[in-house]
Amino acid sequence: MSQKFSFRLHATDGRARTGVISTPRGEIRTPAFMPVGTAGTVKAMLPESVRATGADILLGNTYHLMLRPTAERIARLGGLHRFMNWDRPVLTDSGGFQVMSLSDLRKLTEEGVRFKSHIDGSEHHLTPERSMEIQRLLGSDIVMCFDECPALPAPVETVAASMRLSMRWAARSREAFGDRPGHALFGIMQGGVTQELRAESASKLREIGFDGYAIGGLAVGEGQEAMFGVLDYAPGLLPEDRPRYLMGVGKPDDIVGAVARGIDMMDCVLPSRSGRTGQAWTRAGQVNIKNARHADDPRPLDEDCTCPACRNYSRAYLHHVFRAGEIISSMLLTWHNLHYFQELMAGLRAAIAGGRLADFTADFHARRAAGDIAPL
Amino acid sequence: MSQKFSFRLHATDGRARTGVISTPRGEIRTPAFMPVGTAGTVKAMLPESVRATGADILLGNTYHLMLRPTAERIARLGGLHRFMNWDRPVLTDSGGFQVMSLSDLRKLTEEGVRFKSHIDGSEHHLTPERSMEIQRLLGSDIVMCFDECPALPAPVETVAASMRLSMRWAARSREAFGDRPGHALFGIMQGGVTQELRAESASKLREIGFDGYAIGGLAVGEGQEAMFGVLDYAPGLLPEDRPRYLMGVGKPDDIVGAVARGIDMMDCVLPSRSGRTGQAWTRAGQVNIKNARHADDPRPLDEDCTCPACRNYSRAYLHHVFRAGEIISSMLLTWHNLHYFQELMAGLRAAIAGGRLADFTADFHARRAAGDIAPL
Repeated sequence: MSQKFSFRLHATDGRARTGVISTPRGEIRTPAFMPVGTAGTVKAMLPESVRATGADILLGNTYHLMLRPTAERIARLGGLHRFMNWDRPVLTDSGGFQVMSLSDLRKLTEEGVRFKSHIDGSEHHLTPERSMEIQRLLGSDIVMCFDECPALPAPVETVAASMRLSMRWAARSREAFGDRPGHALFGIMQGGVTQELRAESASKLREIGFDGYAIGGLAVGEGQEAMFGVLDYAPGLLPEDRPRYLMGVGKPDDIVGAVARGIDMMDCVLPSRSGRTGQAWTRAGQVNIKNARHADDPRPLDEDCTCPACRNYSRAYLHHVFRAGEIISSMLLTWHNLHYFQELMAGLRAAIAGGRLADFTADFHARRAAGDIAPL
Repeated sequence: MSQKFSFRLHATDGRARTGVISTPRGEIRTPAFMPVGTAGTVKAMLPESVRATGADILLGNTYHLMLRPTAERIARLGGLHRFMNWDRPVLTDSGGFQVMSLSDLRKLTEEGVRFKSHIDGSEHHLTPERSMEIQRLLGSDIVMCFDECPALPAPVETVAASMRLSMRWAARSREAFGDRPGHALFGIMQGGVTQELRAESASKLREIGFDGYAIGGLAVGEGQEAMFGVLDYAPGLLPEDRPRYLMGVGKPDDIVGAVARGIDMMDCVLPSRSGRTGQAWTRAGQVNIKNARHADDPRPLDEDCTCPACRNYSRAYLHHVFRAGEIISSMLLTWHNLHYFQELMAGLRAAIAGGRLADFTADFHARRAAGDIAPL
């Protein structure tokens, strides 16, 4: 296994790409979907089950882990991989996004962000340097620059000022990260939905130099059309030979559209969160398992799906255990959703490798349009 | 595999027995501990994981299942085994105990019990005949007579009147059950802590004739000493060649004491319920994982335990995920507890077979006394 971080493209189809990221902890097939293991667990799943769905890499949230159980404690216990029993690659976010969305009493300065924990009210100061230290303590394989981004829509001056602060923080993150063979540091492009700002951000990041590049500040309220508008040009502003990671995306149709536009990595809480609220994602569309019409339905969620929820249980059972508030409901629906998302990624990779992404995409949309499963 | 229900004793040690119950759905090694799958799921576990802990049989609750999703719905869907993806034996209780402990507006008559559902307030009438019908619809392998029992302590006249009603219901249950090859009907001895009443109940049940005999009305508040007092004589009142099932028991030391007194089967929600509240059962005693002293502890719950929670996770991790309210906490602790209970049963069976139950019991108590794990 490779002892350094590298990215090799195997094929392209239009702007879409497929390849492999190699790390000392294993390979990541791209385009890759990363399940989110916020607090040291992909909710309602054992890590071996997450792996069984086809996941090559998990995402951990710096904000949650720094507050509880703390990065120092995880380091004393041998790092995040050992702590959560996942020996494959982990990407950690920088904490910046969650500080702004979850914490109380934030104060943003050039230095960083002061905030109070949403758990116990304790005070913390997160800076690019502290974020790099925390992610090093966690043992993250792919470390994200500390950044900041406004919810959209926002005035262009707000977006510009925020992006430039994030670029200064990117330079400080790069400096603080130092040289860590086998570990990667990714820069994060900002600039909202304004092409000039995206270009300025990309140029600054390339000047600093990173192992990979994320597109941040999307999936924050701007809608799919605006997101695809940015993705029509943003990946092209980034180096071809580095992975491109679209943060926080998304729904299956977001994923298909993003991959077609040249995205290599994504993450989203959607499959696991939906699973806990009784929503299942299938090729035929979205199933709301709490709907009474499933109460007597002996069919599986998806006849062709090979996940344990579909192999072994009826919709009637899934409906029953959801209504009864049973934990197995979250376990089975999360497993199904993660399986579906990973099958989608496998299908996209194979289609790109075979030069038939357009057919795959047309089929993806046709199945949903013809789905016997009514939307929510 | 046997197409009828049978019980074969392999060895005895003092009053303790070990053997095998054969059913068309598989063998049950005795003494057996039955995990409780109240509403069609052993909470926080997949059925294949329950099996992996060593369970040969599950218990389902008639009261819960008749109310939601209903016995008729489960029958339409192919029965409880298929519904919940467990193809091995299932024992169902009669609903009597839970009607008295959970429902609203009960009215007890010679005919049966009228009550309102605790879920939606709907009205139901449970009788011996209806209980037999429900358990048949569920497809239960071991069916329990419909009975009634008062919480202890209770006046002896109350206990006597209740026991005699249960015996009349036992005769009606036997009549309504009919002849169902491959399925067993168990009678339930009542009589509280009064030996004469227990003897009267046993005599009545033997006169009716059952495939197995339960000892009911214990583990309802009387304490271990009073329970063991009854178990010192009650199993001897029952036929030697039929399984003896102690209902709703219990803690590990209850189990060890009951097996030594001639009990073959037990069930209890304790391992799964404890798992969800952060309590782990180990050979060294009980561990309260939410206790702060586990926060930095890199050791597993039990160094010698081979369950996934002990093989793959530290106490520090289990502490963290419990504190964070993560579902994996219930999943791992329930798995550990069920594994521990089944290991205890396997140890008891081997000790009885080897004629060394006294040594096993002494060692069981010595490990707990020497445990480095403080009790709650």
